[in-house]
Amino acid sequence: MKDLKTEQVIHDQVIEIGRQARKASHALMGLDTDQKNRILLSIADGLEKNRKQIRAENLLDVEEARENGLSDAMVDRLDLTGERLDSMIQGVRDIAALPDPVGRILKSWTKENGLEIRKTSVPIGVIGMIYESRPNVTADAGALCLKASNAIILRGGSEALRSNRAIADAMIEGGQKAGLPGHALQLIPVRSREAVKQLITMDEYVDVIIPRGGEGLIRAVAENATVPVLKHYKGVCHVYVDRDADLKKALEIIVNAKCQRPGVCNAAETLLIDRPVAEKWLPEAANMLRKRGVELRGCEQSRQIITDMKEATEDDWSTEYLDLILSVKIVDGIDEAVRHINRYGSGHSDAVVTENPEHQDIFGKMVDSAAVYINASTRFTDGAEFGMGAEIGISTDRLHARGPVALEELTTYKYVVAGQGQIKE
Amino acid sequence: MKDLKTEQVIHDQVIEIGRQARKASHALMGLDTDQKNRILLSIADGLEKNRKQIRAENLLDVEEARENGLSDAMVDRLDLTGERLDSMIQGVRDIAALPDPVGRILKSWTKENGLEIRKTSVPIGVIGMIYESRPNVTADAGALCLKASNAIILRGGSEALRSNRAIADAMIEGGQKAGLPGHALQLIPVRSREAVKQLITMDEYVDVIIPRGGEGLIRAVAENATVPVLKHYKGVCHVYVDRDADLKKALEIIVNAKCQRPGVCNAAETLLIDRPVAEKWLPEAANMLRKRGVELRGCEQSRQIITDMKEATEDDWSTEYLDLILSVKIVDGIDEAVRHINRYGSGHSDAVVTENPEHQDIFGKMVDSAAVYINASTRFTDGAEFGMGAEIGISTDRLHARGPVALEELTTYKYVVAGQGQIKE
Repeated sequence: MKDLKTEQVIHDQVIEIGRQARKASHALMGLDTDQKNRILLSIADGLEKNRKQIRAENLLDVEEARENGLSDAMVDRLDLTGERLDSMIQGVRDIAALPDPVGRILKSWTKENGLEIRKTSVPIGVIGMIYESRPNVTADAGALCLKASNAIILRGGSEALRSNRAIADAMIEGGQKAGLPGHALQLIPVRSREAVKQLITMDEYVDVIIPRGGEGLIRAVAENATVPVLKHYKGVCHVYVDRDADLKKALEIIVNAKCQRPGVCNAAETLLIDRPVAEKWLPEAANMLRKRGVELRGCEQSRQIITDMKEATEDDWSTEYLDLILSVKIVDGIDEAVRHINRYGSGHSDAVVTENPEHQDIFGKMVDSAAVYINASTRFTDGAEFGMGAEIGISTDRLHARGPVALEELTTYKYVVAGQGQIKE
Repeated sequence: MKDLKTEQVIHDQVIEIGRQARKASHALMGLDTDQKNRILLSIADGLEKNRKQIRAENLLDVEEARENGLSDAMVDRLDLTGERLDSMIQGVRDIAALPDPVGRILKSWTKENGLEIRKTSVPIGVIGMIYESRPNVTADAGALCLKASNAIILRGGSEALRSNRAIADAMIEGGQKAGLPGHALQLIPVRSREAVKQLITMDEYVDVIIPRGGEGLIRAVAENATVPVLKHYKGVCHVYVDRDADLKKALEIIVNAKCQRPGVCNAAETLLIDRPVAEKWLPEAANMLRKRGVELRGCEQSRQIITDMKEATEDDWSTEYLDLILSVKIVDGIDEAVRHINRYGSGHSDAVVTENPEHQDIFGKMVDSAAVYINASTRFTDGAEFGMGAEIGISTDRLHARGPVALEELTTYKYVVAGQGQIKE
């Protein structure tokens, strides 16, 4: 009985958070660029002013995480060192300095009847953000959403609840001094899973859910949400070395794409090699990659060239290793490469290395991924690298936003139609 | 046992349709504009050539609908008269003549490291279209999706199955003569609801569902789909007559918005009147509307001016009458008007009548709807009226497409990034 009652209380509490967020989203529509930037700078000041308090709460989370036996990597991600706090606060100031994504006239035209149609960027409304461990996401995501005039409901990992609460409180305290509408930024202050279930099904109050974390978290959110979700499950990224590749470039690109930071979603997981260059190039590539500690798993044909390579199973072709492991396959030209990528890839980031303009065009046109690279590393798929400023995530979905989700992607549009009394005949 | 077996067969059949559609969507990515237009013209020829067969099948549907006691309106919608067939075929030719929405460079820029980033419009992939009665949707939706290089899976109403099948067969026959990839256009050839359930949950094979029909159909689809849905439930559209309105314009606009075609989603359902002009203007407006057969349902205050007006209940404010009925409310200025619309409206189309530029700006900025009109009738929300050519539907969703869903909205984008060997530092 007690659990049911608690569930009901949490349920009601999250609904109330949603209702308030919707109201706040309407108030946010009335703010102009200067007001929003002042609010963001004041949020940064609020974080600065409360940094001791934030660190104190954070240390309690870190201590508890250690006691609970969380992995060193997890504990590290949780740990808000002074340097990380500095960069989190600077991040909010940087967002204040970015151009306002709201109120842009995306297109405008005048019809023969004199109606002037303006397609105008507007906030999405209410954004629900679900994330794990890193408490700096609270500030990053909060500031990005507010800059785009969206209300935000934050739901961080339970292991970071104290840290997230302290950060959100400091942001609200700072923001309200400069006129942040009440409830424009809210954190769900409880650890229950019931709260997430409620958040992702409140279509009336929440317009989009952005989950960030491991594939398990994201699948659980996507499968149970009725609110639209912007997401990517994983990045199974490819580098295809074409028969007409500059083989030196190919070497640099595959080493960079695999080794520069193997634990991220835009790192390469599969190397495809065009048959005519395999015999010549693969031994050199394998040598270079192995020197960097990469384990190779090859198809049958590639194992005839590199005989001591482990065999790749069918599962390997769709696995995101997030580690120094690379699957290797020999293909018969660009068409087979494209087919392989479209079949086994995750639609994230895929690269071709070729000097052949026709092959470049085919790859650019036919590979069905958010970002397609010609003679460059897959590692560039990132809001900052693309010049969009900070990103709130990456999408491999096909609707609304694909690739980096930054300020512009946190807006939608409406048509404002100005007339002089026009009626329909 | 038998039913379970049938369900399994349909289930497998729909999955196979999805699998084939995904394959076809990749083949469609390889077609250029000329090829697509030739295919569309050949589809129109196929419809022309098979018009007798289509009409014969259609007459069987019409006859069965009459026998089953469907309403006259329903039977009429089903009836593919010669004129309607002509206009359906012409519609396909018109779509061939529209600009290609695929392959547009939406934006391009070069980074300091020399990477050239091109944000390029590409097809969404596979579109599932679920619709009722009017068999011409089969041709309209099919042609629009193909023009945007999408594969389409059609699922029309069971009452129109023979008509839809004949139309789809004629389209495929015509299209394939000009190189339409196999399975690029498919119709689910059975009446079962199981098929819909399968279609809207095949995330692997279907990228978006567009339902068109009554609110009941659309809610059932949206609630059960795991594939993203582009939709509008209903149009509860408002006309707000401001204290600074040109009252003659206001009269013309409300009469047009309510009466010109009351059964459509962009017709007005609620009239909001600013208090200072209510006493003077409402009697004239009421008189004019009643002459056209409109039943008025008013708030308490408006009933003090028009005493024989029926009382509006709380439900009236969110009701789409689709009929000659109008709810009437007196409000205290623009802010209350905006609040009322954002609370009770459906986010479809809302109009203000005012000569006051400040009020125009407030309404344009603060009303949270797909189309916001200043001194014009709400009846203009339509792909053709907006100059986009034919539309496949209207969206009141906030992500991806808002307002008319036409060719551009049937595309998504990807980033094509061209380099000269760049790697991430």
